Amino acid sequence: MPISDSAARPPASDPTTLPVHGIWPPLLTPLDAELAIDHARLLEHARWCLAQGCHGVGLFGTTGEASSFSVAERCAALEHLVEGGIDPARIMVGTGCCALTDTVALNRHALALGVTLTLVLPPFYYKGVSDAGLLRSYAEVIERSADERLRVVLYHFPRMSATPLSLELVGALRERFPETVVGVKDSSGDWDNTRALIERFPGLAILPGTETLLLDALKAGGGGCITATANLNPRAIRAVFDAWLADDGRAGRRQESITLVRRAIETHPLVAALKALLAHYRAEPAWRRVRPPLVELEPGAGETLIGELEALGFELGGSGA
Amino acid sequence: MPISDSAARPPASDPTTLPVHGIWPPLLTPLDAELAIDHARLLEHARWCLAQGCHGVGLFGTTGEASSFSVAERCAALEHLVEGGIDPARIMVGTGCCALTDTVALNRHALALGVTLTLVLPPFYYKGVSDAGLLRSYAEVIERSADERLRVVLYHFPRMSATPLSLELVGALRERFPETVVGVKDSSGDWDNTRALIERFPGLAILPGTETLLLDALKAGGGGCITATANLNPRAIRAVFDAWLADDGRAGRRQESITLVRRAIETHPLVAALKALLAHYRAEPAWRRVRPPLVELEPGAGETLIGELEALGFELGGSGA
Repeated sequence: MPISDSAARPPASDPTTLPVHGIWPPLLTPLDAELAIDHARLLEHARWCLAQGCHGVGLFGTTGEASSFSVAERCAALEHLVEGGIDPARIMVGTGCCALTDTVALNRHALALGVTLTLVLPPFYYKGVSDAGLLRSYAEVIERSADERLRVVLYHFPRMSATPLSLELVGALRERFPETVVGVKDSSGDWDNTRALIERFPGLAILPGTETLLLDALKAGGGGCITATANLNPRAIRAVFDAWLADDGRAGRRQESITLVRRAIETHPLVAALKALLAHYRAEPAWRRVRPPLVELEPGAGETLIGELEALGFELGGSGA
Repeated sequence: MPISDSAARPPASDPTTLPVHGIWPPLLTPLDAELAIDHARLLEHARWCLAQGCHGVGLFGTTGEASSFSVAERCAALEHLVEGGIDPARIMVGTGCCALTDTVALNRHALALGVTLTLVLPPFYYKGVSDAGLLRSYAEVIERSADERLRVVLYHFPRMSATPLSLELVGALRERFPETVVGVKDSSGDWDNTRALIERFPGLAILPGTETLLLDALKAGGGGCITATANLNPRAIRAVFDAWLADDGRAGRRQESITLVRRAIETHPLVAALKALLAHYRAEPAWRRVRPPLVELEPGAGETLIGELEALGFELGGSGA
């Protein structure tokens, strides 16, 4: 993965030593008029994100409306990205479904394409399930995927999945599958949890789900972030990462800037807001479409948001200054 | 659907005038050693439930671990039931998935087999979605299924789906699809909600998700119930329905009896407990298996529960006395 030249970071806090690091946008999924995935537009967007400096792209996270697509739709979209020339090593694909047979099918399909890095939600229909049940679920998925190249980033997003991954569960999975379980995407938004993961599991890539925690995570020993806003503001987010690596004194100011942009956007439903913004900045109204149960951002809300971002001096891609 | 001879029920509270009525077990899904669906055992169990007096059987509800199986696995199981001779008119099949394309695929597959009655969860990954988004979700599913034979029972189970179906949403769907939307399975366990549904939507079959509310629901004008415990205690639950129809003065006492059995079982994780009980009463240990993230009932808990049921005079099937 392309990284900036690093100078004086002590090894313990060098994110580039972790198995996953840097800035990863979970790609928004563009739709056609039938609400099917627009493969060409998705490929174009993935290329743009990488050209803007993202270390890799995530396909089918929460931002990408993963759960709203069938296994076949998810496979077809991944194939199109790889066939379109996106380096499989720079793709992290979401594969965690409620049915372990679906998750295994998605894993095996990705691995056949050379995509080894997966982001895996726990099954999320049943609530109040035990750590023992979740451990068995992940273990069945990993064992049935039957490929030692498989790498798993555990996906902790309790507000959406309502199925938290406890520190104990992460520890048990790391112990049982030390080569396979390489990270945690922590979308809890709870810094105490992110810090506890970093402190308790050195060598595991801990990636918060928002760039508002990026610099804090890097300072503590995290790997970077996987953040929806990187669909819109990738250069600016990358610039924080680079400033931290270069130790050039600019990271704090840059962090303040990306936090302001995020704060403005996240007062709205995030997926609909980001799609409305891409539609606006690219002058491609089709970007607004979402699959139910999500709904498009109301035009008035979009205009207000665009005004707020203009007041912050925002431009598409973001400034790395 | 077979019903007892009815005598003196006033029309307004006659459940047999509703589009769906009676006692429907959401079938437990038996598994083989690979955690695949044991089709032969499932067919045998469906036949047994119907022979015990159930008006129909539900396939792939929460009790049937629906979300834990792929679309292909769900289709194969339904085919096996129909090919095995279960009357398609006596099957209600759960088809609600997070991806509308999956729900549509399951609906069309069921309709091709002559199974027209579906139980449809809302998409349940995203939380805090709007009624507008859920309305659009159900509308896309119904319209894309493109078959006027389709009948939909809306599945309200907020504790599990974390996606409640509001009275306003039910009303909007009923108004837009008056022929198609025929009922609500109300698994909220909240009698006020069940009563409100019955009062507000005459002609819609309101079916609580527990037999503890069966007699109350029948008195208020509900259709019956869809209840997990009917996998174990179908005759006794049916006997409440029959006593109510016959107006023979026995319904109250019978209700007390089935409520005691339910209360004993529901102190445990319901799916695992019911499977452990079937394994015990049928002397078929394979029935214990569940798919992750559920876990099997611990043997000690099962023995305690069996003792409690013995103390209540319980026998498999239940007594209609």
